[in-house]
Amino acid sequence: MSHIQFERIALIGIGLIGSSLARVIKKKNLSAQISIATRRQETLERARELELGDFYTTDNAEAVEGADLVIISVPVGASAEVAKNIHDHLKPGAIVSDVGSTKELVITEMAPLLPKTVHFIPGHPIAGTEYSGPDAGFADLFINRWCILTPFAESDATAVARLTAFWEACGARVEKMEPKHHDLVLAIVSHLPHLIAYNIVGTASDLEKVTNSEVIAYSASGFRDFTRLASSDPVMWRDICLHNKEAILEMLGRFSEGLAFLEQAIRLGDGETLFNFFTRTRAVRRNIIAAGQEIDAPDFGRHSVSQRGDVK
Amino acid sequence: MSHIQFERIALIGIGLIGSSLARVIKKKNLSAQISIATRRQETLERARELELGDFYTTDNAEAVEGADLVIISVPVGASAEVAKNIHDHLKPGAIVSDVGSTKELVITEMAPLLPKTVHFIPGHPIAGTEYSGPDAGFADLFINRWCILTPFAESDATAVARLTAFWEACGARVEKMEPKHHDLVLAIVSHLPHLIAYNIVGTASDLEKVTNSEVIAYSASGFRDFTRLASSDPVMWRDICLHNKEAILEMLGRFSEGLAFLEQAIRLGDGETLFNFFTRTRAVRRNIIAAGQEIDAPDFGRHSVSQRGDVK
Repeated sequence: MSHIQFERIALIGIGLIGSSLARVIKKKNLSAQISIATRRQETLERARELELGDFYTTDNAEAVEGADLVIISVPVGASAEVAKNIHDHLKPGAIVSDVGSTKELVITEMAPLLPKTVHFIPGHPIAGTEYSGPDAGFADLFINRWCILTPFAESDATAVARLTAFWEACGARVEKMEPKHHDLVLAIVSHLPHLIAYNIVGTASDLEKVTNSEVIAYSASGFRDFTRLASSDPVMWRDICLHNKEAILEMLGRFSEGLAFLEQAIRLGDGETLFNFFTRTRAVRRNIIAAGQEIDAPDFGRHSVSQRGDVK
Repeated sequence: MSHIQFERIALIGIGLIGSSLARVIKKKNLSAQISIATRRQETLERARELELGDFYTTDNAEAVEGADLVIISVPVGASAEVAKNIHDHLKPGAIVSDVGSTKELVITEMAPLLPKTVHFIPGHPIAGTEYSGPDAGFADLFINRWCILTPFAESDATAVARLTAFWEACGARVEKMEPKHHDLVLAIVSHLPHLIAYNIVGTASDLEKVTNSEVIAYSASGFRDFTRLASSDPVMWRDICLHNKEAILEMLGRFSEGLAFLEQAIRLGDGETLFNFFTRTRAVRRNIIAAGQEIDAPDFGRHSVSQRGDVK
């Protein structure tokens, strides 16, 4: 169904997202050649063992030579440095994109460091798992997930259409958005949830009256759900917090207001308020399932999975 | 492997827990007879259609007649009323237990309403899904999960041993605990996580600048994980908040302190503090998986499940 869209794609960064891209590009034959760059020699060797590309280097500049599409998949704090590295080596007319979880500051930092001869079209696929590194990726990661592009007003329409077609060939649906709005949306759907998860797991670890082994033993009653997000890559999340400060602080403020309201209702023993609060959130999950963004199985399908691997 | 442990078991309440008990009792042949009572005629008819028991009634008193084991699986706010209903109808020597998510206040309320001729041994299986009602249960729900019993100092050792053996036959591991400590442990592993989940879903629903359809579309980036807990039964959660106020408020206070610390680090752009905060929580999930309380698959195994049902 798919066909070669770019002669040569350069992937800078070969973690969960980069290596998933490599796998789907190969699977769907979207490029004649894939060049892979990553900073650490060890990661590069692993990418080579996994046969994720055709050309491997720790030098970002070398990787982008002759590439028609360059996708930068590194923690957002490292993206400006990558732009600097590749500036003098990009092929004129190449499309340069990224997958960073924040957009406004990344664009502010990267745009001035890229030559005017390339099409810089920032992006962000809303997909992932709690795992990282080249082993964590899989070709189907983007299926049915959204990829947000934040092109500039002056962006070349053909280049935007080519990048859109690329993500669609990877299985994603593409939406365009203003960078500032992207950062606000992601602050509520992703950044706040991760911070809350990190904090609840941190809170449980710090208690004197409840032991860590009790927390672990009884975690199936709710707590374990949060440990998934709280085991995500710390570097990635540090960078997101530093890059999307304003929107995150706004959402944290809103969250704390809600929590104070809930706390008061508990303190006052106000059953009616509590019942209403717990009722209105129920529909959200049904809507997410209906939108194809969540599986329709109890407990995230855990039981169904464990029954296969873990027969009693 | 299993055999009849009780001649007649009465299940008061036939929701997720009650109906899972009915299914495992039948599957493992743990009782010669199961009598089922539930308040609503419609729920009772559904239990009958599902063939969950041998005898069906909306009258709690009638259900417990002649039963050797009575298990009360109703929202904690309704348990005292059940104790009143059954007081004059319990068979002397019967074991009476419950599955309530809070213990101290439930015991204070129920114990004086039960006759001295029965063995009241409160319990709480740490198992469930976000679904409720007789259709939601399944026989394997308790496998590898913990069931906490909170017997009294004066409880009959044989009765405690029989109830322990019953839960073990259902697949659970049994632990004994003081009611007050149970409530503190559950406040952190279950009650706080649910409240936080309800609040984050509520916060996202209330924003002016981000639409609900955006929240739904991009929910796979973290948010959707919280919607599972936030779609749990509102009556059950109202009652838990009213019954475990003190411990919940303590945990909410601890959580808020942690959040303020995190907020400050973001405001100050303190990358080192953020990195350390996000690093220390990673091990918790690995420990939960090692303890057999979580599946060892990325994304809760969602991908693996959706690949089977939802082939692209």
